[in-house]
Amino acid sequence: MNFSSKLLENAVFEFSKLPGIGQKTALRLVLHLLDQDKADVERFSTSVNKLRNEIQHCRTCLNISDHTLCDICASHKRNHQTICVVEDTRDVMAIENTNQYNGVYHVLGGLISPMDGIGPTDLEIDSLIARIRAGEVKEVIFALSATMEGDTTIFYLHKKLKDFNISISIIARGIAFGGELEYVDEITLGRSITTRIPYENTLAK
Amino acid sequence: MNFSSKLLENAVFEFSKLPGIGQKTALRLVLHLLDQDKADVERFSTSVNKLRNEIQHCRTCLNISDHTLCDICASHKRNHQTICVVEDTRDVMAIENTNQYNGVYHVLGGLISPMDGIGPTDLEIDSLIARIRAGEVKEVIFALSATMEGDTTIFYLHKKLKDFNISISIIARGIAFGGELEYVDEITLGRSITTRIPYENTLAK
Repeated sequence: MNFSSKLLENAVFEFSKLPGIGQKTALRLVLHLLDQDKADVERFSTSVNKLRNEIQHCRTCLNISDHTLCDICASHKRNHQTICVVEDTRDVMAIENTNQYNGVYHVLGGLISPMDGIGPTDLEIDSLIARIRAGEVKEVIFALSATMEGDTTIFYLHKKLKDFNISISIIARGIAFGGELEYVDEITLGRSITTRIPYENTLAK
Repeated sequence: MNFSSKLLENAVFEFSKLPGIGQKTALRLVLHLLDQDKADVERFSTSVNKLRNEIQHCRTCLNISDHTLCDICASHKRNHQTICVVEDTRDVMAIENTNQYNGVYHVLGGLISPMDGIGPTDLEIDSLIARIRAGEVKEVIFALSATMEGDTTIFYLHKKLKDFNISISIIARGIAFGGELEYVDEITLGRSITTRIPYENTLAK
């Protein structure tokens, strides 16, 4: 692209480094910012800087937090005997939005992925084991993506945790709510038959 | 969404004000920035701030520029007798990318759009007339979108300019390169028949 301004080109270049943002979209975003008040643009860039410089990770669950202990870990209303193991902060948000979980979390910070050079030591696994070793935990739930990387991570974690006296489970896999059978892929459908559950278990208690 | 951090929430809120960026995309972008080095994030936000605070508009064509006179207007290689009237800086970039135009530009800063409350006085029309009145200009080309707003603006500008001793043209409208007839809309096809051009005119000279 032929930019009429080096400043414009720089800003577009910075925006186009963001995931999913191409040069044309970057230009649209930058020109939009250029139309805003200086104070608004200042607020935009300050929010990004502040976030990067002041953010912390909860010392217990490693979720993103404004404090050294996140609100969930600090809450007395949560069940601290149950840990839900997730990949990142987005998964915590997704599960919190369901209002169906009252335990605490552990954020791994990724999944084991040899293709991307991510091994077990790159993830927050030792800190998870330390939490379990501390003794309070009774149950660990793996809420990881149903992908090769997720399954590999669960397999590895299960091997590490199986000798502790805790119950280990993974979130249910099967046909999504509203899913029509004919459009469900074969692997999901096949597994949902072999891992079928008693009908009574699905009724609200 | 339940954010685990106010800083995160603020940054996502600022990003989601950008056009075409919803809350989920904003979160993805912000988490990406959070993974980057502090220096990279600093560079990102500085580029935005610098752009907003230091950008200028060319005093002649009003295109975005780093100087009071843009590179195109300052160039002796360009034909200053021909002005191409465009809506915004993106159109200048698009036309420059074709390598088919050697004149100069005039950036209106928008199109007449009563629905959006944009009238002729909101656009850089007086400055265009002043440039033409100065005498050097021989030709004005309207390169505006083929929309109701573009056509309204051309109609208005033509009325204002028709008494000057200059030639006025608009960029050709018709079937796009590679367009298959059966998929062309009726208005475009109808107009491209009524405004047909002699075949010899389309041959490279």
